[in-house]
Amino acid sequence: MSWVAILMGSQSDWPVMQATTAVLEDLDVNYEVRVTSAHRTPKATQDYIADASERGCAVFVCAAGMAAHLAGAVAGHTTKPVIGVPIDSGPLQGLDALLSTVQMPGGVPVATVAVGKAGAKNAGYLAAQMLSIGDTGLAQRLVDDRAANADKVAAQNEEVQASLRDS
Amino acid sequence: MSWVAILMGSQSDWPVMQATTAVLEDLDVNYEVRVTSAHRTPKATQDYIADASERGCAVFVCAAGMAAHLAGAVAGHTTKPVIGVPIDSGPLQGLDALLSTVQMPGGVPVATVAVGKAGAKNAGYLAAQMLSIGDTGLAQRLVDDRAANADKVAAQNEEVQASLRDS
Amino acid sequence: MSWVAILMGSQSDWPVMQATTAVLEDLDVNYEVRVTSAHRTPKATQDYIADASERGCAVFVCAAGMAAHLAGAVAGHTTKPVIGVPIDSGPLQGLDALLSTVQMPGGVPVATVAVGKAGAKNAGYLAAQMLSIGDTGLAQRLVDDRAANADKVAAQNEEVQASLRDS
Amino acid sequence: MSWVAILMGSQSDWPVMQATTAVLEDLDVNYEVRVTSAHRTPKATQDYIADASERGCAVFVCAAGMAAHLAGAVAGHTTKPVIGVPIDSGPLQGLDALLSTVQMPGGVPVATVAVGKAGAKNAGYLAAQMLSIGDTGLAQRLVDDRAANADKVAAQNEEVQASLRDS
Amino acid sequence: MSWVAILMGSQSDWPVMQATTAVLEDLDVNYEVRVTSAHRTPKATQDYIADASERGCAVFVCAAGMAAHLAGAVAGHTTKPVIGVPIDSGPLQGLDALLSTVQMPGGVPVATVAVGKAGAKNAGYLAAQMLSIGDTGLAQRLVDDRAANADKVAAQNEEVQASLRDS
Amino acid sequence: MSWVAILMGSQSDWPVMQATTAVLEDLDVNYEVRVTSAHRTPKATQDYIADASERGCAVFVCAAGMAAHLAGAVAGHTTKPVIGVPIDSGPLQGLDALLSTVQMPGGVPVATVAVGKAGAKNAGYLAAQMLSIGDTGLAQRLVDDRAANADKVAAQNEEVQASLRDS
Amino acid sequence: MSWVAILMGSQSDWPVMQATTAVLEDLDVNYEVRVTSAHRTPKATQDYIADASERGCAVFVCAAGMAAHLAGAVAGHTTKPVIGVPIDSGPLQGLDALLSTVQMPGGVPVATVAVGKAGAKNAGYLAAQMLSIGDTGLAQRLVDDRAANADKVAAQNEEVQASLRDS
Amino acid sequence: MSWVAILMGSQSDWPVMQATTAVLEDLDVNYEVRVTSAHRTPKATQDYIADASERGCAVFVCAAGMAAHLAGAVAGHTTKPVIGVPIDSGPLQGLDALLSTVQMPGGVPVATVAVGKAGAKNAGYLAAQMLSIGDTGLAQRLVDDRAANADKVAAQNEEVQASLRDS
Repeated sequence: MSWVAILMGSQSDWPVMQATTAVLEDLDVNYEVRVTSAHRTPKATQDYIADASERGCAVFVCAAGMAAHLAGAVAGHTTKPVIGVPIDSGPLQGLDALLSTVQMPGGVPVATVAVGKAGAKNAGYLAAQMLSIGDTGLAQRLVDDRAANADKVAAQNEEVQASLRDS
Repeated sequence: MSWVAILMGSQSDWPVMQATTAVLEDLDVNYEVRVTSAHRTPKATQDYIADASERGCAVFVCAAGMAAHLAGAVAGHTTKPVIGVPIDSGPLQGLDALLSTVQMPGGVPVATVAVGKAGAKNAGYLAAQMLSIGDTGLAQRLVDDRAANADKVAAQNEEVQASLRDS
Repeated sequence: MSWVAILMGSQSDWPVMQATTAVLEDLDVNYEVRVTSAHRTPKATQDYIADASERGCAVFVCAAGMAAHLAGAVAGHTTKPVIGVPIDSGPLQGLDALLSTVQMPGGVPVATVAVGKAGAKNAGYLAAQMLSIGDTGLAQRLVDDRAANADKVAAQNEEVQASLRDS
Repeated sequence: MSWVAILMGSQSDWPVMQATTAVLEDLDVNYEVRVTSAHRTPKATQDYIADASERGCAVFVCAAGMAAHLAGAVAGHTTKPVIGVPIDSGPLQGLDALLSTVQMPGGVPVATVAVGKAGAKNAGYLAAQMLSIGDTGLAQRLVDDRAANADKVAAQNEEVQASLRDS
Repeated sequence: MSWVAILMGSQSDWPVMQATTAVLEDLDVNYEVRVTSAHRTPKATQDYIADASERGCAVFVCAAGMAAHLAGAVAGHTTKPVIGVPIDSGPLQGLDALLSTVQMPGGVPVATVAVGKAGAKNAGYLAAQMLSIGDTGLAQRLVDDRAANADKVAAQNEEVQASLRDS
Repeated sequence: MSWVAILMGSQSDWPVMQATTAVLEDLDVNYEVRVTSAHRTPKATQDYIADASERGCAVFVCAAGMAAHLAGAVAGHTTKPVIGVPIDSGPLQGLDALLSTVQMPGGVPVATVAVGKAGAKNAGYLAAQMLSIGDTGLAQRLVDDRAANADKVAAQNEEVQASLRDS
Repeated sequence: MSWVAILMGSQSDWPVMQATTAVLEDLDVNYEVRVTSAHRTPKATQDYIADASERGCAVFVCAAGMAAHLAGAVAGHTTKPVIGVPIDSGPLQGLDALLSTVQMPGGVPVATVAVGKAGAKNAGYLAAQMLSIGDTGLAQRLVDDRAANADKVAAQNEEVQASLRDS
Repeated sequence: MSWVAILMGSQSDWPVMQATTAVLEDLDVNYEVRVTSAHRTPKATQDYIADASERGCAVFVCAAGMAAHLAGAVAGHTTKPVIGVPIDSGPLQGLDALLSTVQMPGGVPVATVAVGKAGAKNAGYLAAQMLSIGDTGLAQRLVDDRAANADKVAAQNEEVQASLRDS
């Protein structure tokens, strides 16, 4: 059974990354979470990648801020797809994390999503989309979820129309 | 048989995007190429997405410059994974394309890679990694290719050592 | 009777975009408001553009944040003028929305205004200016409003002079 | 008969701005061109605005680089729509001109298009779109031109397909 | 008797610009303050420049935010030195105002100082330095003030040493 | 007799800074030029400031690239006005030099002009404007020069009109 | 006995820089702290550098915000290693201080660390690493500290696992 | 005998990094050069760090472009000082490499120097400065080299003076 490994460089990233796990739970995708650092615990990070791969992990999601190397470091130790979530911590507000995550050299890609919470949410969707290539049930759940999201936009529109009528 | 659809907003992106097709050919992954624009041919773009999906397309790769909306527009019409390649055309040198591609709102991810040629190459690798989740042969070819790339770095190192001995 | 369609990608943009409707009401210009998303409800967006155009809509105002594609997506489906308001949501504070809105490729313009509330206000003025080309009454109301604004600056100056005399 | 006034801060902007006049000629829209500077010839600029308005000018297009004030200065002297084209001259490559043009304060909008040549082309389209609100012939020419542009994308696609078959 | 004219685009700039007037008062330099806008009251701005010049104004200090044109507009109507203070209003936090103020074309300089309050303070010092070229009394007061500032740094150092001894 | 000292951090800045000396010669203002570095020859820089001040130097113009400290270092050793010209050398194209020059702390201003050649030219004009406060002859030459510049814009306009008639 | 000199441009930097002294105390490295400004007290700064060097100071740590010249100014007066900490004060949030600190010209390096508190902490570690080249006891304390930091990451991971089990 | 290890992510960085080796040779400091990649050869990189440390390497210099992780990856595997040189390769011109190198999290510093060739040169000087803490001969060579550099500035000044006399 394929599952998603979610790595983050610091416990302080966990509140943001719960947006990833919420999406995966809604879509009924299995996952593990690990706090592990490219710089402070490089050996533990590498050991986990090897172990997780053996246990059927199909996609890695990595979140880090500032000089965000975690996703790239993981991508250097696996040929499975790696998704990078740049976290907006520190004074430069995530521009540093974005460039450190997305500008990977040829041969070692990181699938980068938006800075911060929107990116954390989309990391969940993107991981599920990757798994859905070979899982028609999950593919259908993604289609249904997209339709439900469209309904939410329609509901938002109704609220605005109502507020206009009342004003 | 799963394959990759490569879309680009303008024929001028084709020389860069041949870095994607070169990787896919090396890894023996099937693909199609289309020039189609989110803004100038939106209907043709949507028709192609629907048709390609029916014919077994599993991953979309989309390249565009400036206000690069192509990847996002494709992502709005499919729940298959979409990879975005920001092209460095125009005076702002790709920072505009990078932000327009990666900063997608929650629910509609684009897997963004580096600006320009390095990103085009990595789009090929990332698409292959996604397909390899359910294709052990491709997974092995990715592992072999990674090893071959490591050998190239070692060869580069030998050349530098030789130049140091000669100087 | 010509009128203005105001589209926004999310209900969260509505508080900012009330600066647009306030200006249009002051200038006695008719308008409609819709929450609709380039990415989450692309079909509804397209249907609305076609319907609004038939019902005499002359100008579209579109607001979105982050990878702000809404204005560009609308501009790809109409040849009527489209005004884009970049919203400063998310960690990059609107620089992403600005570049995603203004850097449109040749052939599909978006008339971009300032990031955030000042831009929302100016979207109302710009839409009215466009309609005033063929509406001398509205043209006069714009001239009168400009004069009133100049008076407000003069009044601000008086307040500062008073505070200087008192200090 | 409505027409478009094209102002630029320096003769060096003229090669870029011929992209604007080319579009207007294709769409059969009348125009005038003036080299005039917000900073070096402020009085001549103001005199021209007043004179042009009297002679039926309906839209102003203004191009300038660096601290690009021309569009804003014109917008401060008219309530007709003003389109700003940021020029990428100088070491900062147009980011300075973009921010100086688009970030106008509330009450005095400038309809900003992309930096450089793409923006110059789109200034022509945007001016024509504004005039087309009250000119059904021009509105039809814009629709036809959009269709012709779509055909060009299709032709580009054919060339890429041919090159793929030949390789 | 030479004096300094302090212009600002909006009353909201006044709290920041009181840092300028505080410095001028400390250095015993005369000044006037005006709220006047390059875009909303261009004629009043020009009238004031002409009138102030006749009445002996020697230096203009101009503060504005966003597409900050006020200093440049004043510089286009006088050959007296003009100091520009970029104000950090709006989502782009003053980067827009800085580039709009400093990147003036050849022939029309604006002496630009730092963004926000530090710049407002320095505008006062810079104006005084200009006037001191022909005023030995003011030149001496500037030397004395500089020495007093050095003493303040030394006093800060003493406080830190004391806190280290106590810890 | 008042004169202007022009300092630059490297001989490589001299071709750009000849735009400053050309303006000063046109306006009949005396000047000296020195290559001296804030970092590599700090003592020589300080000795020159003291010596120049004694010999009647009234304004310092300082050019430097990258972490451009020269203007600030000079400003820390004099209370005469210091003009800073950010040079666009190195990969960051002058954004580094601009911020290093303009963002001076309160109490020690640097009058910053545009990055590169336009700024070098304007440093000459700004220095002359400062000296003209007490020099009516120079003030008149500045007024005449401004008028001549306006004539050049008018001449540029004539050339563009001629090219339009011929096309 | 080798020790570290910690200089800062303003007392307001002291709360941030206590992260440096905390690290040095943990690692049992001696240090001195001085508030001294490159611009407001240049002579005192130079006197301190000469005096500290004579008294065995081996490394300088310098913190400053905005046009952060302090580290560069110190580096111009010593050939001992200088570490620069860019402080995120003012509207540009430390991007100005980062570029002003790191972009030093060839021959006069500043060892730059991250903007703000993370950089202040790392300045302590980097200074200790430099001193540890010739101090095996300190080298061992650095190894031990690194291991303790790895343990902290592991502890953070345990907390997240616990929260997952409880949810 | 202490020496410096110079690592670079790609052979294409070697021409730039010869500025580092040139400085080290001038200062009579031993060094080794390795091409090794944080992402493509992570194991070889780690093996080299361990081996070099055992053989007396005292300082690591690491150069990389784009999402430049090499310096950070090395810093995560050693507590010896690591100097990072951001290389300006790719469309973003080194801003990506600068932020990826300097914005390291607390506990794992990278001593970052300027982007590109100036930084490569300064990496040599900074490594030598670190080694000179315990090597009085090297310390003296650094003092002499600084004096020689000051002489070069003086010689540049003479050339400019000569060109002024001749003009």
